[in-house]
Amino acid sequence: MRPIILITNDDGITAPGIRSLIESVHDLGEIIVVAPDSPQSGMGHAITIGRTLRLDEVDVFQDMGIKAYQSSGTPVDCVKLAHDVILHRKPDICLSGINHGSNASINVIYSGTMSAAMEAAVEGIPSAGFSLLDFNFDADFSVAKKVAREIARRMLAESMPENFLLNVNIPKVKEKAFKGIRICRQADAKWSENFDRRKDPRGRDYYWMTGKFVNRDKGADTDIEALNEGYASVVPVRIDFTDEKIKQWLEIKYPDFRLQ
Amino acid sequence: MRPIILITNDDGITAPGIRSLIESVHDLGEIIVVAPDSPQSGMGHAITIGRTLRLDEVDVFQDMGIKAYQSSGTPVDCVKLAHDVILHRKPDICLSGINHGSNASINVIYSGTMSAAMEAAVEGIPSAGFSLLDFNFDADFSVAKKVAREIARRMLAESMPENFLLNVNIPKVKEKAFKGIRICRQADAKWSENFDRRKDPRGRDYYWMTGKFVNRDKGADTDIEALNEGYASVVPVRIDFTDEKIKQWLEIKYPDFRLQ
Repeated sequence: MRPIILITNDDGITAPGIRSLIESVHDLGEIIVVAPDSPQSGMGHAITIGRTLRLDEVDVFQDMGIKAYQSSGTPVDCVKLAHDVILHRKPDICLSGINHGSNASINVIYSGTMSAAMEAAVEGIPSAGFSLLDFNFDADFSVAKKVAREIARRMLAESMPENFLLNVNIPKVKEKAFKGIRICRQADAKWSENFDRRKDPRGRDYYWMTGKFVNRDKGADTDIEALNEGYASVVPVRIDFTDEKIKQWLEIKYPDFRLQ
Repeated sequence: MRPIILITNDDGITAPGIRSLIESVHDLGEIIVVAPDSPQSGMGHAITIGRTLRLDEVDVFQDMGIKAYQSSGTPVDCVKLAHDVILHRKPDICLSGINHGSNASINVIYSGTMSAAMEAAVEGIPSAGFSLLDFNFDADFSVAKKVAREIARRMLAESMPENFLLNVNIPKVKEKAFKGIRICRQADAKWSENFDRRKDPRGRDYYWMTGKFVNRDKGADTDIEALNEGYASVVPVRIDFTDEKIKQWLEIKYPDFRLQ
């Protein structure tokens, strides 16, 4: 039986990145696409509660003979709908992206692309999110497509460890300059915000979020460093957020953790 | 100098839970409140990009002599705005909640309450999110207030380890039945969705997300078990999502991770 590959993204079903992802793996299994009907960048792990959801079959990928659905929901909603309403079973793997822009380092927590993949991992589906370090609508996805295909091929070839989830980022380089794939840890970097305050036509303040990405991490084994050197970065991501080190510190510090 | 305590939530600035949190710690430092102007449950780590943000001073907590701001943004936006637009410095600690409903176990990834606290931790601010296992608007916050005060007091009393972030959940029990505080790990549980499909007045399908919480984890050291026994659960949360175990597995499995 051909494996079922669930594909989603956060840039919306008409973004070039999701078409590139489908093209890169369409012969590896039966593809099913469930993606947001509009851009959902920065949605993180948001879900739609207290509001209704739409889910409609669309013919966006009919040219490739692939079934596709769009939803009014978030990327995480799309994964839940795919699993529970459309497939009624677990797909063999879930691939998310290819995102237009980096999700390396701390971006993993803001990213709808990675949150969709994380939701699939919570469901027990081996998953990977792919992001290209190029925001342009007409970005060159050729290296990213090769990386996505290689990783999907390996994920399908054998059984992965439990809770298998990869954050894959691809540098903006030509094929000749591309160095390969490197397994990394998440760099300790963050966004330094700088809100742009303006006045609306009625004289009331409003703000645009802007920011500068600051990498505090000089390690050679980080995703940021791999990308700087021309490698695609692969960071395995946890869905158990427990901090064992701080847990041990608390247990030693407060053996008697009781109210006084 | 009195410590600055940043308070936020995801149920919105008028929810009883945030007032309870403020009441529980108002004498421990100078309080500044920045919270969403409307309920934002399930927003996860969403941020507002590509749209404008409002931020306005409001007199919701004037009766306690406390400065408060509401924003049209997500809980994470509120923390960013507090840090960059209002305070222009790091508060000493950040407290989020008290949420109306559980954020134990896997709920940490969907929770706006915890995402706000996580954002503060990314900024280097020791943080804690508090959630009471009672969805009711008129829930009894008396135990939760004691727990929040005790934890805030300890966080202010001495310097915490780097990236200090706690997910604190409080059981729905009377004060007499409350057992104390227990340090735990995140239980391996998940939501099993079951979408409720309906027809709108025009005959088109729409969906409501519903779900059942399923705990697969029989461990005695989990947050779910502590709560079942009448303890408040404290789970330290990581902001480095790297999965070291799977990283090592990949390094052994694919020492030659290159494109072929």
